[in-house]
Amino acid sequence: MTNRRIVATGTFDILHPGHLFYLEESKKLGDELFVIVARDANVKHKPHPIIPEDQRLAMVAALKPVDHAMLGDQTDMFKPIEKIHPDVITIGFNQMFDEERLRPQLTARNLFPEIIRIGKFADGELCSSRLVVQRIIAKRAHDCHHLE
Amino acid sequence: MTNRRIVATGTFDILHPGHLFYLEESKKLGDELFVIVARDANVKHKPHPIIPEDQRLAMVAALKPVDHAMLGDQTDMFKPIEKIHPDVITIGFNQMFDEERLRPQLTARNLFPEIIRIGKFADGELCSSRLVVQRIIAKRAHDCHHLE
Repeated sequence: MTNRRIVATGTFDILHPGHLFYLEESKKLGDELFVIVARDANVKHKPHPIIPEDQRLAMVAALKPVDHAMLGDQTDMFKPIEKIHPDVITIGFNQMFDEERLRPQLTARNLFPEIIRIGKFADGELCSSRLVVQRIIAKRAHDCHHLE
Repeated sequence: MTNRRIVATGTFDILHPGHLFYLEESKKLGDELFVIVARDANVKHKPHPIIPEDQRLAMVAALKPVDHAMLGDQTDMFKPIEKIHPDVITIGFNQMFDEERLRPQLTARNLFPEIIRIGKFADGELCSSRLVVQRIIAKRAHDCHHLE
């Protein structure tokens, strides 16, 4: 009997139910869920994280569906995936990875996981770090004046 | 053999390692950790929560040390505590409850839990929802201009 290993990835800047849904759905696909948390230095395709990487890691590691959480590699995102050797890699509904581009890079490293995109969490709540940030700025707008 | 029941309480607006430390330390004091999450309407002693109560509840319930999470009562904060009948009530290091004032109200309801204050999480991270909010406003200050 072998454990079915799942890898999920993300920045997880300000935790919300959308993250939780992604991780819970990922966990359902196997036995052991490994989560790779993006390094501060590697988040370049969206605003820099508010929360430092060690704190983002600690919070992800504390979530019930997560068996193992670790920071990503600074230079080679495939390095931890090679070590874990997952049966499945899951992609969040709004993550930019493209299966077509991911697949040949995995194959080149002798990795043949299923790649599964997790659907959107259907809920009207603040399921996006961006929306939380917007809400904070809108609700606490008076604080802005102190900065100017 | 009886389960030792712990009650922890809080708003848990934007989860951070300080919350996690409080809940982990609380859990260590017994077997079953019940967390009562403050209702939006009842948070009056500090700025109104950014995150709605259902979402705050969902995130607290997802944390590993938490066995049961529930929203508080809108009118009587002691109602859920009466139902749980805890052996211990824990207070976070920066919570305003005062054991001297809490004790007679518990006694009046025939409740005699230990009341234990959990220490401060000694870390330089963003262990306060207020600090996270400040960081967001500082980092994304340019967004403020759109509001004016």
